[in-house]
Amino acid sequence: MPKHLNPNRNNQLRKELSTQTYVEGILNGDRGILARAITLVESRKPQNRKQAEEIIERCLPHSGNSFRLGITGVPGVGKSSFIETFGIQLINSGHHIAVLAIDPSSEKSRGSILGDKTRMEKLAANENAFIRPSPASDALGGVARKTRESIILCEAAGYDYIIVETVGVGQSEIAVHSMVDFFLLLLLPGAGDELQGIKRGIVEMADMIAINKADGDKLNAAKKAKIEYKNALHLYPPNEKGWDVPVNLCSALHSKGITEIIEVLDHYLRSMKENLQFDQLREKQNQYWLIESLNESLQFDFFNHPEIVKRLKKYKADVSLGSMSPFKAAEELIKIFKN
Amino acid sequence: MPKHLNPNRNNQLRKELSTQTYVEGILNGDRGILARAITLVESRKPQNRKQAEEIIERCLPHSGNSFRLGITGVPGVGKSSFIETFGIQLINSGHHIAVLAIDPSSEKSRGSILGDKTRMEKLAANENAFIRPSPASDALGGVARKTRESIILCEAAGYDYIIVETVGVGQSEIAVHSMVDFFLLLLLPGAGDELQGIKRGIVEMADMIAINKADGDKLNAAKKAKIEYKNALHLYPPNEKGWDVPVNLCSALHSKGITEIIEVLDHYLRSMKENLQFDQLREKQNQYWLIESLNESLQFDFFNHPEIVKRLKKYKADVSLGSMSPFKAAEELIKIFKN
Repeated sequence: MPKHLNPNRNNQLRKELSTQTYVEGILNGDRGILARAITLVESRKPQNRKQAEEIIERCLPHSGNSFRLGITGVPGVGKSSFIETFGIQLINSGHHIAVLAIDPSSEKSRGSILGDKTRMEKLAANENAFIRPSPASDALGGVARKTRESIILCEAAGYDYIIVETVGVGQSEIAVHSMVDFFLLLLLPGAGDELQGIKRGIVEMADMIAINKADGDKLNAAKKAKIEYKNALHLYPPNEKGWDVPVNLCSALHSKGITEIIEVLDHYLRSMKENLQFDQLREKQNQYWLIESLNESLQFDFFNHPEIVKRLKKYKADVSLGSMSPFKAAEELIKIFKN
Repeated sequence: MPKHLNPNRNNQLRKELSTQTYVEGILNGDRGILARAITLVESRKPQNRKQAEEIIERCLPHSGNSFRLGITGVPGVGKSSFIETFGIQLINSGHHIAVLAIDPSSEKSRGSILGDKTRMEKLAANENAFIRPSPASDALGGVARKTRESIILCEAAGYDYIIVETVGVGQSEIAVHSMVDFFLLLLLPGAGDELQGIKRGIVEMADMIAINKADGDKLNAAKKAKIEYKNALHLYPPNEKGWDVPVNLCSALHSKGITEIIEVLDHYLRSMKENLQFDQLREKQNQYWLIESLNESLQFDFFNHPEIVKRLKKYKADVSLGSMSPFKAAEELIKIFKN
């Protein structure tokens, strides 16, 4: 890889910064320092981890004041064009945009995610935007945590519109859904066919569906798809927020329908804040991540215990064959773990 | 409660049976012994638990040879009439039916679930049917485990069609979905309105939708609902089994459409067995329950640790207020737990 394409290389060679320098830099909105702080958050080295935690704790009081938007859609749906057009329009009305990509599992789309900055040229060049490619391949729990922590840093740096982008094919959407205030699903005007690539369950998590590429000879198909989705959504149980999921058409390429989507998001945010649901949502997100982190940690200790690592395989095989009940196997493994 | 309405009373007063007597009774298909064994499985007393486990392990080699069917639907959809008509028809073609109800959370429907035997009079009176009301209110994990274990005992007793019934409003469907071979969702001919009571996510778990009460003046509405659901299901991503979810009409009251549903189930079972997916499904269920039991056990130890019980509330409050990050809080709680 040519030197200038490795975004971390310079950071790695630079001398270490003090926690104070990091925090001040972030609070001053220094994009370079923010990028380095996120690199620290993504690091697996224990000393980096410790410093990252200190930075996060000190940024925490300055965080929370943003709209966190999850955007998902299969490769080819036009996520980057959408985010670019959408982001520029938000910046023009005074917002500061941070884009974080999360994509731990999908090797095939890695290329495009790593190329984020190239894909979103205008946005990347804008001083009110901060674009961060996906962290290196890792367990989902790790990536989710890193993304969650990066949101805090971006908010402390003054970004008030945080976009978390996923590819809609893996488990990451559940994690993202639990850390954002609104979940936008981008679809193609194929009325169903494009869902082949989308994981089951994602449609039900969506707060809004936007059918992109609704232009030219695809406009009619898009209009038809809109009606079909709208009808289908009536057959879903209402979501827990009592929010009626809209289906919009847009063309990121021709900047059409983006204003209307932003209006929906504004309306959502306003009504969530008016009836105090927004604070409840944030509390719920925090509680979710507390319990989730506890469970992850407990599981990590268990499944990495040398004796468990050694024995689990045999128990799994016995359970698969039906020669031992899963409950009995679990009980014996727990006994081994405790001794 | 009048004496004759307490189904456990007699069992509690009877003298204890040996494990050998239990196992022999179950394997001989003795319904009384089976019922007492399930009462033992449901007991929280440690000595009962130990005996229950021995019985389960000894029944395990004789289990597995059944079709496990989950049936869900809101109160009022006609689940009991459906199960009665459906069950009698299965018995007439040579099957032995066990019906287990699982409903840990819903207080409002407790009455009807407890009244299972009254609701399904014909089925309850049939010597080839075994009906077990919901276990006493308990944590979901506990009820799921008990149901899972009761399935094993019923199979060992010769029941080859196990129906697990839930009310579709709680978390129990996810647990049930992971322990059955097929998940049937019963709906009313209201085309959407009846979903108000169903939890989001359940439609996507269904292997089949049956619109009940499709008779009389509701027949037209039911036909319309069928078309709408069929169209809507095309907009869902395909399920992981590659199974095309059918939508059927039926009237349990007039015994209409039940044969067609049984044919679908037969076809499903046949094709799953032909391409070896059935064994894979069972293995997956067993692996799921092993991991699930391990996680439950780890969480139980953690959340019942006296020091954690004492401190968790404060950490939760800090996290809610945003004065501490959920990750930091989790880390500190884990440290406390380990010391």
